[in-house]
Amino acid sequence: MHAHTPFVGLVPAVLSPFDAAGELNLAAVEPHAALLVGDGVVGAFVGGTTGEFSSLTVDERVALAGRWAAVLKGTPLRVVVHVGGNCLSDAKRLAAHAQSIGAAAIAAVAPSYFKPKSLEVLIAWCAELAAAAPGVPFYFYDIPVLTGVSFPMADFLDQAPARVPTLAGVKFTNPDLMTFQRLLRADRGRFDVLFGMDEQLLAAVVLGARGAVGSGYNFAAPLFNRLLAAARANDFATARVEQYRGVELVALMLRYGYLPAAKELMRVRGVDLGPLRLPHAALTVEQAAALRGDLATTGLIDTIGR
Amino acid sequence: MHAHTPFVGLVPAVLSPFDAAGELNLAAVEPHAALLVGDGVVGAFVGGTTGEFSSLTVDERVALAGRWAAVLKGTPLRVVVHVGGNCLSDAKRLAAHAQSIGAAAIAAVAPSYFKPKSLEVLIAWCAELAAAAPGVPFYFYDIPVLTGVSFPMADFLDQAPARVPTLAGVKFTNPDLMTFQRLLRADRGRFDVLFGMDEQLLAAVVLGARGAVGSGYNFAAPLFNRLLAAARANDFATARVEQYRGVELVALMLRYGYLPAAKELMRVRGVDLGPLRLPHAALTVEQAAALRGDLATTGLIDTIGR
Amino acid sequence: MHAHTPFVGLVPAVLSPFDAAGELNLAAVEPHAALLVGDGVVGAFVGGTTGEFSSLTVDERVALAGRWAAVLKGTPLRVVVHVGGNCLSDAKRLAAHAQSIGAAAIAAVAPSYFKPKSLEVLIAWCAELAAAAPGVPFYFYDIPVLTGVSFPMADFLDQAPARVPTLAGVKFTNPDLMTFQRLLRADRGRFDVLFGMDEQLLAAVVLGARGAVGSGYNFAAPLFNRLLAAARANDFATARVEQYRGVELVALMLRYGYLPAAKELMRVRGVDLGPLRLPHAALTVEQAAALRGDLATTGLIDTIGR
Amino acid sequence: MHAHTPFVGLVPAVLSPFDAAGELNLAAVEPHAALLVGDGVVGAFVGGTTGEFSSLTVDERVALAGRWAAVLKGTPLRVVVHVGGNCLSDAKRLAAHAQSIGAAAIAAVAPSYFKPKSLEVLIAWCAELAAAAPGVPFYFYDIPVLTGVSFPMADFLDQAPARVPTLAGVKFTNPDLMTFQRLLRADRGRFDVLFGMDEQLLAAVVLGARGAVGSGYNFAAPLFNRLLAAARANDFATARVEQYRGVELVALMLRYGYLPAAKELMRVRGVDLGPLRLPHAALTVEQAAALRGDLATTGLIDTIGR
Repeated sequence: MHAHTPFVGLVPAVLSPFDAAGELNLAAVEPHAALLVGDGVVGAFVGGTTGEFSSLTVDERVALAGRWAAVLKGTPLRVVVHVGGNCLSDAKRLAAHAQSIGAAAIAAVAPSYFKPKSLEVLIAWCAELAAAAPGVPFYFYDIPVLTGVSFPMADFLDQAPARVPTLAGVKFTNPDLMTFQRLLRADRGRFDVLFGMDEQLLAAVVLGARGAVGSGYNFAAPLFNRLLAAARANDFATARVEQYRGVELVALMLRYGYLPAAKELMRVRGVDLGPLRLPHAALTVEQAAALRGDLATTGLIDTIGR
Repeated sequence: MHAHTPFVGLVPAVLSPFDAAGELNLAAVEPHAALLVGDGVVGAFVGGTTGEFSSLTVDERVALAGRWAAVLKGTPLRVVVHVGGNCLSDAKRLAAHAQSIGAAAIAAVAPSYFKPKSLEVLIAWCAELAAAAPGVPFYFYDIPVLTGVSFPMADFLDQAPARVPTLAGVKFTNPDLMTFQRLLRADRGRFDVLFGMDEQLLAAVVLGARGAVGSGYNFAAPLFNRLLAAARANDFATARVEQYRGVELVALMLRYGYLPAAKELMRVRGVDLGPLRLPHAALTVEQAAALRGDLATTGLIDTIGR
Repeated sequence: MHAHTPFVGLVPAVLSPFDAAGELNLAAVEPHAALLVGDGVVGAFVGGTTGEFSSLTVDERVALAGRWAAVLKGTPLRVVVHVGGNCLSDAKRLAAHAQSIGAAAIAAVAPSYFKPKSLEVLIAWCAELAAAAPGVPFYFYDIPVLTGVSFPMADFLDQAPARVPTLAGVKFTNPDLMTFQRLLRADRGRFDVLFGMDEQLLAAVVLGARGAVGSGYNFAAPLFNRLLAAARANDFATARVEQYRGVELVALMLRYGYLPAAKELMRVRGVDLGPLRLPHAALTVEQAAALRGDLATTGLIDTIGR
Repeated sequence: MHAHTPFVGLVPAVLSPFDAAGELNLAAVEPHAALLVGDGVVGAFVGGTTGEFSSLTVDERVALAGRWAAVLKGTPLRVVVHVGGNCLSDAKRLAAHAQSIGAAAIAAVAPSYFKPKSLEVLIAWCAELAAAAPGVPFYFYDIPVLTGVSFPMADFLDQAPARVPTLAGVKFTNPDLMTFQRLLRADRGRFDVLFGMDEQLLAAVVLGARGAVGSGYNFAAPLFNRLLAAARANDFATARVEQYRGVELVALMLRYGYLPAAKELMRVRGVDLGPLRLPHAALTVEQAAALRGDLATTGLIDTIGR
């Protein structure tokens, strides 16, 4: 295949939109996308962990990916469709659909109810999945804290290309920055390694990261873009200040529950994506008000969105 | 609801049938059921862990449950349909379908990609799920080794009935026999607590177990029925010998991979359920031959099926 | 070496005695021993987990083992000295001392700050340790929940005898009853496998256990001896009732913290062993009173000690 | 107490010296110290994880700390004595001794056989320990991967000062860089937070780290000092190259076992610290030769020590 253009910049792992009854609300994709275009991100990672993929039916995942692809057509944002899950048949169907809608890339977590017994089995899984979208670059999405699947990713990038010709890189949601450095340089740096932890983005950047996928880029991309600009300008003192604002934001959100708080932050930014699905729960009205109060008190409200 | 009749005896967690291409092979349900009827089990637990539910599409799970319900009609075996998974919408659809086909009960594992943050959230999940099949007894399926979700089941049986009126009991695939004893006596013993670890069935029986759900009852029910008969006759010396045969069998199977070996044991018993789906893999021809050799050498071949 | 006589019956893992200031109080060993002799146990496991070995200095462990050996001389109780810990030099010193005081056996947990990387390394460790007491039977003490060290004990009993000539068996504090059954039968049953979970003693007994080491046998040996007597008489209905009393007792204790409650139960039985050492903490006066109230309300107070 | 001067620069967690028989070899401290002085580090962290503290007797820990204090007297290197372990009495004795020899600071891991049940208990432990050396700054040593004890360190720095007046900071051997950023700023930045992962030192530095404690600074301080110098000069391109050399070095060492390889690297640098103690094992002669070959082939031999 042709060389895949790596992502340089921020790729929000987009939250999924629901209506008050918990049904998928595709109408909210357009304003969400408009916000992201305005915020200067470079892609949208659809139906990932932040997008509650495991709480969506396959039909909903198809509809959601299709909507994002349609809405982002003609914008500078490229669509990455997350197609992973426990059932390989479902994942293949999602991959083929992603190809049909012109997705820039697909990504997949490892199956996690049954865990691959070896790296070889994981690669066999990826090979069969990626073959369902032979024209679309494939990223493995490494997130051991949720899947419980933890293989050495340096070995993965060494062994997988022989079986997965479309392999483009790894979405690395893993605090192991030693491995991250090795992945950036694997096979003379030909893989796109997207960093997945907003709260230590600067650490990844100084080690060589160019692209990042994260939840925070839904509602706080301006803050993180300032961080990236400062780092590019070799102004690490400023970058460090911005990174710490990001840390304060995440720490505040964790006090309320990260994803419920993220939905509220979207409302702060003017986009209502509704509640969450079980086993997540939305904030109560009181919690939402308290969170907004905290955002004001800390001054974070003035920095995340502009 | 009317009182639910507990399961007394063995309930195989049935393996799922595939053809050589890995497609669902519903034609194999009938001979499988015939074997089980002949072996004297009391139910079939369909689409559980042994049945690779997480590797099946929802449509396949619907078709498989429907087929088992049809085939077992008129036999002494009752059908339990496993409807759990990560997506609550899917689970509710499966539950409603199970009710429509006259399932004796439904069961569900906890969602495990996103893990419930509290017992309260887990109960809220079960409540919404069980309400989709208001006429069918509901079992929670506790299997922390695979889900990573571990709440005190004694508290669950204390708190869940207020929110889950159809709650019938727990399928307990957990080595914690202290909790097991407490569950058997919860609310004066009104719950049906099905033990899920074949290799220590006798331990559960001496502590009060009446019913058990397990993989081994697909192909070795005669062995385990002898164990139960001996225990009923207060002949624990014999029961212990049978239990140890079960241990030897499982130990042997684990050397080859439990589920791949289980498929081969079904062929030994005359029922071909085909291969497995990734991330599991079938035995090679050589491995299958070696396993059969080991079964002969150890004499296990003479005890599992008669 | 000569064949080691297995333990048949209960072996309390004795609590360690402290004075109000937290200093070792050797004077309490004598009344503690008198209680145990009266309760009909068959040994004392000194300086184990229940005895807070890891909170004692090596000199204290030496003094404590010496005192127990002296006090139990001439009684039917045999002394097992736990000599394990992170530092092999210390363990060897303790082992040599145990031999010098005529201990019936020694036992050792795996080192757990640094964990052995392979079973072979664990066996090398045991070999060097056991060689420091060449005349004393050696038990490996498997307790993965505390050490985080988990090797297949069936393989251990297969491979260790070649390197550890004094190997007598395993103290198995592990809910894996499949492995337990295999250990009981390893090398034609020549090892003494002591079960370490009071709350499921009956399960182990029905599977073949003869001896047990546990905390509850400090203060509730009469209850558990009734359980054993009933099982020997093939009266498993009675045994089950006694086992469940044990479960209720442990469940009650866990609400207060197991070891702090255990110290209070010793006072209920008339032996004051003082407080605990950090990171454990003693019950407050109010908690102690509440626990005694619960023991009375539940009737457990009438069954544990007579 | 007077303000504690933070560590700015590299603090090697010194390897412990043994002779061929595995006995402590205090004669090797002097050449080891001379190497470190020449390499421009700012302290020595004695008897920590790298120093195999858990494999040393308390007497050996006392002797080793005393020797390092004596040898480093008059040099620019300050001594930090690690006094932690499972037994609080031992830790207090070590702390008092550290004070008597004029240690610049003490540090302690959490007890890990018995794990503190709450942050409050951990703080109570630290309070009692630190009080045994009331004139010496105290660092808590957070290393959850080995202790299994994981409390939120931001809360620790919030709550501990009220109970531990000598609290100076945290040695943070933890990949959680979000928490690291919060610790650096806790109470307006008054704590000294020493980073403990060589292979991502640059990440910590860009986030604000000034001091680091690590194994690699025994034998590769020149490399890491170049990294620090480049970062200070705002030359992050060079710093990144040096960091990656550090990663290549660690990756190579891990193929042989980190600590065994570290002992060989000391010999490469001209200081023979002997073998390791069980459960670690030294390299074989063949492995040592292969490691040296790899160091030459990769060119790492030319960069670690000058």
